[in-house]
Amino acid sequence: MAAGAYEGDRARVRGILDAVCAEGRTTLTAPEGRQVAEAYGIAVPAEALARDVDAAVAAAADLAGPVVLKIVSPDITHKSDAGGVAVGVEGADAVRAAFHRVVGNARAYEPGARIDGVQVQRLLPAGHEVIVGAVTDPTFGKVVAFGLGGTLVEVLKDVTFRLAPVTEAEAESMLDSLRAAEVLRGVRGAPGADRAALAGQLRRVSQLVDDFPEIAEVDLNPVIATPDGTCAPDVRILLAAEPPRERRRYTRAEILTTMRRLMRPRSVAVIGASNEEGKIGHSVMRNLIDGGFRGDIHPVNPKADDILGRKAYQSVADVPGEVDVAVFAIPAKFVSAALDEVGRKGVPNAVLIPSGFAETGEQALQDEVVRTAERHGVRLLGPNIYGYYATWQDLCATFCTPYDVKGGVALTSQSGGIGMAILGFARTTRTGVSAIVGLGNKSDLDEDDLLTWFAEDEHTECVAMHLEDLKDGRAFVEAARETVRRKPVVVLKAGRTAAGARAAGSHTGALAGDDAVYDDILRQSGVIRAPGLYDMLEYARALPVLPTPRGDNIVIITGAGGSGVLLSDAVVDNGLRLMEIPDDLDAAFRSYIPPFGAAGNPVDITGGEPPSTYEATIRLGLRDPRIHALVLGYWHTIVTPPMVFAELTARIVAEERERGNDKPVVASLAGDVEVEDACAQLFARGVVAYPYTTERPVAVLGAKYRWARAAGLLGR
Amino acid sequence: MAAGAYEGDRARVRGILDAVCAEGRTTLTAPEGRQVAEAYGIAVPAEALARDVDAAVAAAADLAGPVVLKIVSPDITHKSDAGGVAVGVEGADAVRAAFHRVVGNARAYEPGARIDGVQVQRLLPAGHEVIVGAVTDPTFGKVVAFGLGGTLVEVLKDVTFRLAPVTEAEAESMLDSLRAAEVLRGVRGAPGADRAALAGQLRRVSQLVDDFPEIAEVDLNPVIATPDGTCAPDVRILLAAEPPRERRRYTRAEILTTMRRLMRPRSVAVIGASNEEGKIGHSVMRNLIDGGFRGDIHPVNPKADDILGRKAYQSVADVPGEVDVAVFAIPAKFVSAALDEVGRKGVPNAVLIPSGFAETGEQALQDEVVRTAERHGVRLLGPNIYGYYATWQDLCATFCTPYDVKGGVALTSQSGGIGMAILGFARTTRTGVSAIVGLGNKSDLDEDDLLTWFAEDEHTECVAMHLEDLKDGRAFVEAARETVRRKPVVVLKAGRTAAGARAAGSHTGALAGDDAVYDDILRQSGVIRAPGLYDMLEYARALPVLPTPRGDNIVIITGAGGSGVLLSDAVVDNGLRLMEIPDDLDAAFRSYIPPFGAAGNPVDITGGEPPSTYEATIRLGLRDPRIHALVLGYWHTIVTPPMVFAELTARIVAEERERGNDKPVVASLAGDVEVEDACAQLFARGVVAYPYTTERPVAVLGAKYRWARAAGLLGR
Repeated sequence: MAAGAYEGDRARVRGILDAVCAEGRTTLTAPEGRQVAEAYGIAVPAEALARDVDAAVAAAADLAGPVVLKIVSPDITHKSDAGGVAVGVEGADAVRAAFHRVVGNARAYEPGARIDGVQVQRLLPAGHEVIVGAVTDPTFGKVVAFGLGGTLVEVLKDVTFRLAPVTEAEAESMLDSLRAAEVLRGVRGAPGADRAALAGQLRRVSQLVDDFPEIAEVDLNPVIATPDGTCAPDVRILLAAEPPRERRRYTRAEILTTMRRLMRPRSVAVIGASNEEGKIGHSVMRNLIDGGFRGDIHPVNPKADDILGRKAYQSVADVPGEVDVAVFAIPAKFVSAALDEVGRKGVPNAVLIPSGFAETGEQALQDEVVRTAERHGVRLLGPNIYGYYATWQDLCATFCTPYDVKGGVALTSQSGGIGMAILGFARTTRTGVSAIVGLGNKSDLDEDDLLTWFAEDEHTECVAMHLEDLKDGRAFVEAARETVRRKPVVVLKAGRTAAGARAAGSHTGALAGDDAVYDDILRQSGVIRAPGLYDMLEYARALPVLPTPRGDNIVIITGAGGSGVLLSDAVVDNGLRLMEIPDDLDAAFRSYIPPFGAAGNPVDITGGEPPSTYEATIRLGLRDPRIHALVLGYWHTIVTPPMVFAELTARIVAEERERGNDKPVVASLAGDVEVEDACAQLFARGVVAYPYTTERPVAVLGAKYRWARAAGLLGR
Repeated sequence: MAAGAYEGDRARVRGILDAVCAEGRTTLTAPEGRQVAEAYGIAVPAEALARDVDAAVAAAADLAGPVVLKIVSPDITHKSDAGGVAVGVEGADAVRAAFHRVVGNARAYEPGARIDGVQVQRLLPAGHEVIVGAVTDPTFGKVVAFGLGGTLVEVLKDVTFRLAPVTEAEAESMLDSLRAAEVLRGVRGAPGADRAALAGQLRRVSQLVDDFPEIAEVDLNPVIATPDGTCAPDVRILLAAEPPRERRRYTRAEILTTMRRLMRPRSVAVIGASNEEGKIGHSVMRNLIDGGFRGDIHPVNPKADDILGRKAYQSVADVPGEVDVAVFAIPAKFVSAALDEVGRKGVPNAVLIPSGFAETGEQALQDEVVRTAERHGVRLLGPNIYGYYATWQDLCATFCTPYDVKGGVALTSQSGGIGMAILGFARTTRTGVSAIVGLGNKSDLDEDDLLTWFAEDEHTECVAMHLEDLKDGRAFVEAARETVRRKPVVVLKAGRTAAGARAAGSHTGALAGDDAVYDDILRQSGVIRAPGLYDMLEYARALPVLPTPRGDNIVIITGAGGSGVLLSDAVVDNGLRLMEIPDDLDAAFRSYIPPFGAAGNPVDITGGEPPSTYEATIRLGLRDPRIHALVLGYWHTIVTPPMVFAELTARIVAEERERGNDKPVVASLAGDVEVEDACAQLFARGVVAYPYTTERPVAVLGAKYRWARAAGLLGR
């Protein structure tokens, strides 16, 4: 149990669950559920279990005031449907009548049902009806859920999820994560809810399912939340038929040791190297050589003596010295046998390019390869991948073509097609890359191993990952949280929608999780979720270029009023804040711009201004310590042509960075085609700039802000 | 009144409103509101006005059952705040007590208030609380609003608007436009609402405000909607202090006559033409000549005999023959005098490039120009614009540079900066353009005039408009509806967000409408709203390339499973539908793809396939009449390189179009940089294709579908 976790009465719950199991049941009765809740300090209304009508009358008298009667039967799950509930009953006669009615209805509904009695419960006061629950997600395990009750929210699907157990702060963040969060604070004169009590409820439920993995589901629906506390009149608990499977986990040190040898190898063997053009084993050899890899390259092929001028070996066993990586370029059916030799040689990493495994239905073949690898402690990348690039090593272990623009972005993709898009995009935009890695079937190495490495890798400043599923959602979240503290992680989760999720299923055979769960938990892990492929690529390209903002005050400086309006729209759309300009700063801006220009924010310097106006206002924006980020809107004119704007902006930004005024600057260039070159020049000199769009520069700035917040570098 | 409109008792309402006016009031009392409602058949609960306590007791007895008592006073607007409401009162004693309490509270709350009595109203049964209202929008005039009542929806802002009056079909569409629309149909066993009665209520309220322009606001909050009908216990009606200003309107014939001469001129005069490089009057002359305009170009300049080889005139009066357009390139202060000469010459159109009018605070100068123009019947484009292009006339009446790619897109922008972005984007993508028009301050000609023209213009296949405000929302909607029947209209409305709207205010001095109203009413008019500048440009470029779909069945054919998942996501995001593939069609696809490929939808032909597999499956997709649109996902491989894919796809699409199988085809190309050329080739040959993105091709297809639906070419 984590330090500071909520401590429930575990022994009492253990006893109840064991008793339920002993009866072969997976559903707890209401009184059992209530006892479990009490053991974890979850507030439930005063009540009694009445086994006969006199006991019910006595119990109602003890409770004083109106009560609710509910049938108690392990055989009746939906009490209301069975007519087994009577609400607002008051007085001995009414209780007596209600008892008989409830029991009679239940008997008629389910003739053979065992009836343990009737719950007599104090009627709760009016309040907000909320839902608190926990489920077992196939990707993330125990997950706690929170929503506002009632038909409307059921229709609008306004619910939020967190990994269980939640801390107090996380529980409170759930209250604020609903679209209708305001309601809980009290609106239009309606009272709010006791937020601390609600957060406590969430914390206790989450701890309960964490302490008892066999609890598959908890449902407190509704929880009545008033300004004075919370109370759960119905506690529904389901047990799992079988315990979840544990997945093999490696320690951080183990992961780093093999990842270091994979990403910075000194010696690479190519299993199935070939002299024959068109073969994958040829392309891989050619790319390793043409890419300029500075370590040893050992072709392995029993039928050749020499491949592309390098001595070829019969078997990897014959290769002299240590080998860090074996790249496989042989048909699927031969992989396991060759892997056995690789394992015996003590090679720590196998890169399995071949397809023909789980993705084509050959799960057994893949399982065999995994077993062979585990026997020798070899870690596997793939199978069914294009390979990988480690640009700072000049390593191109792929059948694609080398990529040589070294930089700070590490990109991974689950799909080969997306990998090719990454390569093409990077090449055309000259994106500086530290690694591109194909993950394919993820039979072993996956996103969490790579994140663990990229967090350490000093060349990597930003990680971008395309994924369709996660083998182990918790391991991912753990690795992501650790990495996000140091560098931004962008995630494109494919299969977001129901239709998309179906396609993911048919593609990888993996069950894609429900997107609502993914969305909340990825957010919780601090990664930046890209809405689409192109956004992921642009974020990856631009994030390392932008310095980290030190505060929320954004100022737009624009030569085109029209761009100013659109840039303002984009600022709000991205959850950013336009600075309220103080009077002295407003006056300072006004001193540079024509009298009919608009100060305030956007600062509209107007269209006909010379370079000196751009220069003066941009410099002011960079120098004033109250401003934290600049969004520039350029308008192509003869007075200030595109390359003049690019040159002056890049120069001022560089000069001010020298002086320590290091702020993110993004720009939207509206103009004729020359603005494209101007943007390329600006990008190369540290200003994130795009032509013909006001949305993209602000979206990138928004992504940087989201990361800065997640990394704790800004408030909230 | 339109045919089929709801007919209320206008005389009765006229009498009530006149009486209210006569008293100098702008707020109707509850009984007055109720009478107005009754005159328009809006259901209100049975009630009586009791002037004393005995009358109240008698009225309650007549109504039988519990009643509500409400104070009636012209001086008390918020009855609840005044303690002037008592709910659920039953029995003579209780009514007596409640009457005294309500009157006493009101007297204490507002000592001088005139008290007309107490409304005694039947207590309504429980039902859905909805809000029906009407407001006077500064842009759109009378607008009817509908939402679900209660705190939650107030927090979530789930309301919808339509121009008043609404037809029955429009009223019904409002019920379905709420995010929580399901609620009204009844969910989770809760009863639904009487939809016909609700729609009728909306229709009647909308007709009321249309019939009586002086009604500024109607508020029925709540309306109680049950399965048996609707009822409005509170009717609040406010009158406008002054009547709205009428704007000068031109007939369709008048608009077309001048627009034809503007967009297809035979003779253009340049007021302020100049030989001096760097002057706008020089650039305009140079561009008219270099652009290859085939009509007459007449420089006007009192200080020159000859400009760029053309005879210059002292005054436009001296120009021989008729002149269709006078382009102004002189400082703002000289415009009015020169315009007077232009008017006397009988020139129908003045294109006012100069700035220095309303946008710099010189509203008076602009008003003077408008008055001069109206005196002569000259229509004005601008001021404060870059000018305009009419490419099919080789006309470049701007200070920018000529554009010569003729095609089907007409683009307009309110801002000069956005106009420059349009030009640059068009040039770099070789977008075929019919016109680019700057609207600037819109002192006269605006979007509705242009829409009216573009609807007729045979060269224009698609219209894209950037706008910050609308001078006359109703005229726009009217023109848009008419145009959308024939061709798609894309709108980028800037100033969507609160921050954006503020910036729009400071830019044009125009009051930007609330975006919720804009959004609903633009949708109602059938235009496609672009979420950002780049989207508008891409939609404009691509929509004319795509044929119109004839049904909803979309099939994805992909070589990259990873793209298939992302394309599926995009299909759902854009409100499109993946076809459920019938068994025979599934079998037909399967016959072409490897056994481990996935049929269903997406059809995953797998990555290593030769051109023949793409060819066979695409052809099948085009030929099968049950499929209506194709989304292709290409994966760069050695077996099927990008240009091979492009060539085969373009060829098959062309062949099948020849055979009458004319369906929209969009493609996402994932690969190395060669895919960029492949996309350009595909685009040029009728397939909308983009590299490195799965989102954009589907977004464009979605835009085409939205238009097809709005134009009535598809169901719904």
